[in-house]
Amino acid sequence: MRKVLVIGIGAGDPDQITVQAVKALAGVDVFFVLEKGEVKRELVDLREEILRRHRGDRPYRVVRGRDPERDRRAEAYAEAVHDWRRRRADVCAEMIDRELGPGQTGAFLVWGDPSLYDSTLAILEDVLARPGTAFEIEAIPGISSISALAARHRIGLNRVGRPFQVTTGRRLAEGWPEGADDVLVMLDASNAFTRVDAFTGVDAADVEIFWGAYLGMPDEILISGRLPDVAAEIVAARAEARARKGWIMDSYLLRRTRGGDDAR
Amino acid sequence: MRKVLVIGIGAGDPDQITVQAVKALAGVDVFFVLEKGEVKRELVDLREEILRRHRGDRPYRVVRGRDPERDRRAEAYAEAVHDWRRRRADVCAEMIDRELGPGQTGAFLVWGDPSLYDSTLAILEDVLARPGTAFEIEAIPGISSISALAARHRIGLNRVGRPFQVTTGRRLAEGWPEGADDVLVMLDASNAFTRVDAFTGVDAADVEIFWGAYLGMPDEILISGRLPDVAAEIVAARAEARARKGWIMDSYLLRRTRGGDDAR
Repeated sequence: MRKVLVIGIGAGDPDQITVQAVKALAGVDVFFVLEKGEVKRELVDLREEILRRHRGDRPYRVVRGRDPERDRRAEAYAEAVHDWRRRRADVCAEMIDRELGPGQTGAFLVWGDPSLYDSTLAILEDVLARPGTAFEIEAIPGISSISALAARHRIGLNRVGRPFQVTTGRRLAEGWPEGADDVLVMLDASNAFTRVDAFTGVDAADVEIFWGAYLGMPDEILISGRLPDVAAEIVAARAEARARKGWIMDSYLLRRTRGGDDAR
Repeated sequence: MRKVLVIGIGAGDPDQITVQAVKALAGVDVFFVLEKGEVKRELVDLREEILRRHRGDRPYRVVRGRDPERDRRAEAYAEAVHDWRRRRADVCAEMIDRELGPGQTGAFLVWGDPSLYDSTLAILEDVLARPGTAFEIEAIPGISSISALAARHRIGLNRVGRPFQVTTGRRLAEGWPEGADDVLVMLDASNAFTRVDAFTGVDAADVEIFWGAYLGMPDEILISGRLPDVAAEIVAARAEARARKGWIMDSYLLRRTRGGDDAR
């Protein structure tokens, strides 16, 4: 039986990978990579550093597929993503079919944790549903960017007995999520945290932010404080880092200290 | 400067610990343990297995403090927990003060990830705020039970571009969380998932559950399916396992497939 592993490799620190993942790396015959048009050189280097450090000496093959373009202008976000996933599944199906021999193990390495805003598992289930395809899938969890963020700020994601919500910048831009005073935001390309004051019933003065970029990497940046005090600083730091490096991976926690659930 | 580490040791598989954490273990002089009245022997053994496997040969000291009782009958849950934390902080302050010498490193090992429904970091910040206390705190992230749960079920925690909420069984018992169709439930001692049908606007027939207990351990149990089809099976499996082992660590994802956000 052929096997395809989806391995979480952590948020940026090459040692933030589990012993379970290191053992799995040792058994991989083929690493599959979906390559975007513009390759983020630093991330490629970091991935290679992880393999150099943790794979050991046994040679391996790397098979690269061309990641299809996503229609970023599409009105219907979810549909555009679903369509993109289907086309990625076509590419993955072909790579696996052509390059993974009987009894061999292939792997996709995923930044952070495969269960958080990553589509590799869903794509592989899609591939597996196609007629004539057979392989085993195994997921190996990784340190998510939200665990890395909390650790670097030395905070809990939840407060005592309270819920928290994980969401995207796109969603946050629509308003403060109902039913949560602690909100973790990922994939925010447009500084949605600066618009909190425009949301119904939320006073930015009552919100703390814990922001981090390039967590665990040499370029790590951490900023935290009351939102009105640090929002401009974060906007400037993001813009500067993004311009300098050509890419950014960041996330943040918004913590409402008054006016929400505390009032109950 | 003295140093106190808070190290996430994963959800149950002794190899689900990061290389970063393994390196940190190597430098620890004193392991601090808060012991409850009834010790869960299996968890103590598992922790010792983690140290045996990953600490190496260098001897270490273990200092045990008596975990104060929590008032579980208290009406005001958050206050009872805060009071409990203060008393735990007293115990920790004394252990650190008495047992951690200048330049030494102490550590607390935490199941899962220190940022998720664990109070060790908050307790240490409390200790540090006391006059005359000085040490550095460092948190090392771990694989959370929610990442482990998702990996074993080979699913994402979120759906495309959608938020999810992390909450407790106690909270879930009050109703389906507003603003989320995907809900991760931790610390549920009373099968709150069986009451979903009584919640306003939720039909259990439209909810899938992905449940797991003792994730990554030899006794791991995984059950998933439509809530009405598997709820009784989960209740029975929980009761049986808990009676047999004397304790349980479990969590689950509830995924609403209709009637919620999808309807927009």
